[in-house]
Amino acid sequence: MRVLGIDPGLASTGIAIVDGEALAVSDYAFGTIRTRPDTPLPDRLHRIYDGVIRAIDDMSPDIIAVEDVFSLERYPKSGIALGKVTGVILLAACQRSLPIMEIAVREAKQILTGSGNAGKVQLEVCVRSRLNHPEPIRPEHASDALALALTGLYRNCGPAAAALNRRK
Amino acid sequence: MRVLGIDPGLASTGIAIVDGEALAVSDYAFGTIRTRPDTPLPDRLHRIYDGVIRAIDDMSPDIIAVEDVFSLERYPKSGIALGKVTGVILLAACQRSLPIMEIAVREAKQILTGSGNAGKVQLEVCVRSRLNHPEPIRPEHASDALALALTGLYRNCGPAAAALNRRK
Repeated sequence: MRVLGIDPGLASTGIAIVDGEALAVSDYAFGTIRTRPDTPLPDRLHRIYDGVIRAIDDMSPDIIAVEDVFSLERYPKSGIALGKVTGVILLAACQRSLPIMEIAVREAKQILTGSGNAGKVQLEVCVRSRLNHPEPIRPEHASDALALALTGLYRNCGPAAAALNRRK
Repeated sequence: MRVLGIDPGLASTGIAIVDGEALAVSDYAFGTIRTRPDTPLPDRLHRIYDGVIRAIDDMSPDIIAVEDVFSLERYPKSGIALGKVTGVILLAACQRSLPIMEIAVREAKQILTGSGNAGKVQLEVCVRSRLNHPEPIRPEHASDALALALTGLYRNCGPAAAALNRRK
């Protein structure tokens, strides 16, 4: 199963692909789509949309895991900007007929670190350790995209999903 | 000058076209793009995107006036959903190379009714009166889209813009 994880951000959208079955990851890659603050908002959104469409076409994922920005309700202004970015990402997935999971940051942290309140550094360490990646994963948006892709993989694969449900 | 006004909403996006010069409107039309709550979010976003693209292609506006959802920061959850809708609207405008004005509801109310705190009923009455429209304009999203289009027209036309600037 191949999961495309996307961490929406106006200046930097993290994007990552994870190939695997249940807890065994056979391949992965990550990066970011960056936009400049001096570019008009619609063009920034278009660049992100275009990057996502290209990632889908290049990597043929089975499913997309994107951060559920509802979880950011404490920050309404950045939440609305993230809503705009998320809107064009969901549109791209729909136009390529891909199923979508919206995943709360809390759930990704719970699954990967064992605590929904884990910090960002801890989350990155856990992502790195699960992938046996030799060095720190930077930037943070790329690491978060990997966390979303891994969570999507675990959530959709039988044994891990069952284990998770038992823990609830 | 032809302005396409769009009032983003997930269940019902208002859409209106206004043709005119300064305060003189020569033609107008309005309607809504509706989506069903039992449809998955990405498909609803796609339907809205598609409706906006079609409106642009059918009506060839010079500019788009869309509600600035930042002004809804008091309602983070609906604000984020509106952010997603606004994201695909801005993308559509960008893909058709159209300039965009994001207009705060407060500004539309100020320009059309004389008060930024006017109620929705009052706004509809003012929109109707400025267009000499014979009957109430329904639904509310369509009336709001007309208000945005009229505000976009006034903001972009010399005398009205100058008068507005003097008032500030």
